[in-house]
Amino acid sequence: DSQHSLENMSDPYSSDPPRHAVLKPASVKPFNAETPPFLLVEQFITPNELFYVRNHLPVPQIDPETYELEVEVEGSNKTVLLTLDDLKKFPKHTITATIMCAGNRRSEMTKEKPVKGLNWGPAAVGNATWAGVRLRDVLKKSGINEDDKKWKHVQFEGVDFDPTGKTYGASIPFWKAIDKRGDVILAYEMNGSPIPRDHGFPIRVIVPGVVGARNVKWLGKITVSENESDSHWQQNDYKGFSPSTNWDTVDFSKSPAIQELPVISAICTPSANEVVKVQDGHILVKDLGYAWSGGGQKIVRVDVTVDGGNTWHIADLDCQDAAEPPQHWSWTLWSARIPIRSGIRNVEIWAKAVDSCYNTQPETFRNIWNLRGVLNNAYHRVPIKTQ
Amino acid sequence: DSQHSLENMSDPYSSDPPRHAVLKPASVKPFNAETPPFLLVEQFITPNELFYVRNHLPVPQIDPETYELEVEVEGSNKTVLLTLDDLKKFPKHTITATIMCAGNRRSEMTKEKPVKGLNWGPAAVGNATWAGVRLRDVLKKSGINEDDKKWKHVQFEGVDFDPTGKTYGASIPFWKAIDKRGDVILAYEMNGSPIPRDHGFPIRVIVPGVVGARNVKWLGKITVSENESDSHWQQNDYKGFSPSTNWDTVDFSKSPAIQELPVISAICTPSANEVVKVQDGHILVKDLGYAWSGGGQKIVRVDVTVDGGNTWHIADLDCQDAAEPPQHWSWTLWSARIPIRSGIRNVEIWAKAVDSCYNTQPETFRNIWNLRGVLNNAYHRVPIKTQ
Ligand SMILES: [Mo]
Ligand SMILES: [Mo]
Repeated sequence: DSQHSLENMSDPYSSDPPRHAVLKPASVKPFNAETPPFLLVEQFITPNELFYVRNHLPVPQIDPETYELEVEVEGSNKTVLLTLDDLKKFPKHTITATIMCAGNRRSEMTKEKPVKGLNWGPAAVGNATWAGVRLRDVLKKSGINEDDKKWKHVQFEGVDFDPTGKTYGASIPFWKAIDKRGDVILAYEMNGSPIPRDHGFPIRVIVPGVVGARNVKWLGKITVSENESDSHWQQNDYKGFSPSTNWDTVDFSKSPAIQELPVISAICTPSANEVVKVQDGHILVKDLGYAWSGGGQKIVRVDVTVDGGNTWHIADLDCQDAAEPPQHWSWTLWSARIPIRSGIRNVEIWAKAVDSCYNTQPETFRNIWNLRGVLNNAYHRVPIKTQ
Repeated sequence: DSQHSLENMSDPYSSDPPRHAVLKPASVKPFNAETPPFLLVEQFITPNELFYVRNHLPVPQIDPETYELEVEVEGSNKTVLLTLDDLKKFPKHTITATIMCAGNRRSEMTKEKPVKGLNWGPAAVGNATWAGVRLRDVLKKSGINEDDKKWKHVQFEGVDFDPTGKTYGASIPFWKAIDKRGDVILAYEMNGSPIPRDHGFPIRVIVPGVVGARNVKWLGKITVSENESDSHWQQNDYKGFSPSTNWDTVDFSKSPAIQELPVISAICTPSANEVVKVQDGHILVKDLGYAWSGGGQKIVRVDVTVDGGNTWHIADLDCQDAAEPPQHWSWTLWSARIPIRSGIRNVEIWAKAVDSCYNTQPETFRNIWNLRGVLNNAYHRVPIKTQ
């Protein structure tokens, strides 16, 4: 009705969905919020209502009855339109995958030197079971030959749009989209329910092992192309730079778009300056943190230290699924029992993870600092008090 | 003749091939030697006679006329025997790929705390053009269905053997062996010539992106299996451990075999304590070093600093081939022009590389130290004198 239209004109966010009260907002319009860290590591599968939300624009209202996904093959006159029912006729494929924001843990990098971006803590990440249809199957049905060397990228457009009418967009390399082991799906379910509005209802492309920004929500269009998406978010955002690059010298065309994310870990409990009990000369921290690596790599070890690296302790990898690299898409939850020298009251816990390529985390934010505050995978360092 | 047999009995290394005089031996029997670093970075393709040699055992003498490669499918009675002529009937496939020893740069880690292993400098690595037949084609021809979930590993056995008769052996995951984009080849040529004896004549399996130890030379047998190779080198060597793990506590079954190597870079010229000229307030170093990452990841940036990370300078990536990740198998050669504050006489050049997954190198050896001295990918730090 006209009342509703007026509201929308004055505030395009007025029809955003309700959110769980425990989510901690980094911004409200658009809505961006993370899970409280202690809740994040309680469960291997993050419940939908606790899953971090990263929206660039207002949440669109989509009628599943009239929804259509457009598939375009560039340079041909071929355009395929698929309804939800059409999509659901493809074989159903289910994966469990962690999605992480490129800016996760940005608040730590900002302390080194200010960066531009939402002030995320360590919980702009979650692990869910996604079900839908293989992008590979849809592309092949749309006439794409997987061995055609012409195709370099697959572009995605959301139906969410900015005040000028521009929609959110991103792309991934063609090889990832078409690869048998790529496991890219057009997901219609998140943890057994239709994908919630905040997470992309009715269709979100899930690109496991790849930064959240390419996992486009409210998917409206897929384009098979020789080129990357020309969207702001593909070209002028979500890229890494040298610590020496500043806003006067940055040239976004010089860095590649972030796709697979590097190895990372984070300590979720205890939180900074929390008092932790010492028993039998040890602190025992259950559900201490998570670790994950992009590209389907598996976490093979997490090391923790409370003496600045003089002695390292091997963490227990408590929850990890059975998938083998390069298709290990889920995070690992870990805990540790760490000896504490008697009389020590203030310690700093450091954590670092190693993945199945034996890549490991850089030690400090100082040498990976970048102006957009992305790729915040330095050792996590949390000061605590012991008692 | 009997004279020759007696020689072999007294010294199994007596029939090893002659080697180029500039190779710097890390051990003589077995022969292990690296390229002088300044020569290494002069050319994108490492000449055969300068390519580092990593032999675990005496070099076998193989008659190409009678050579046969055995292909076994475990649990079936199928064994295929392929002569060199049989192999050459498969389509020829050529790749350019860097091969690196797991122990490359070990001499730097040893300085942190002693480790067991050959004392490699930064040149136990080389880049060559390899031609042969796709392992994938040979396996399919041998009756292997690439989608059969039963197969987990492909084992390789050399014909080189130790005094007890045990041959060298290793394995790689089945997915890598069969993957379209895996580019694993049974190579019979290295840089356009038959593979030299030191590098595996007549057939070496080239597993691009994967540690040298799995690129088995003098290939005698391939086994498609549910299990890894049970060789010493697969099970009890070539694995990474925590800095806290020592020879009393190590359990080799607890770490995965190294396959894809992590991102690395090294400075090859200037060498330690070399005097470098300052011109217009800068040092200019051509052919300064190489950078590489396993898993087909491409180097996207190399940063250098001469003031301990206060300021970083972006290196020029001079030589890099056009292959895109995850099939970028070659290294990158880089150089840099670095400003030097006037009056400074002693500086330390540090280098770190970033790959297309935005993984980067750890800062110090201290926190990646491991008892076998493998995976030596901390920042390279070279002290020089300026003039
Ligand atoms: Mo993100
Ligand atoms: Mo090696």
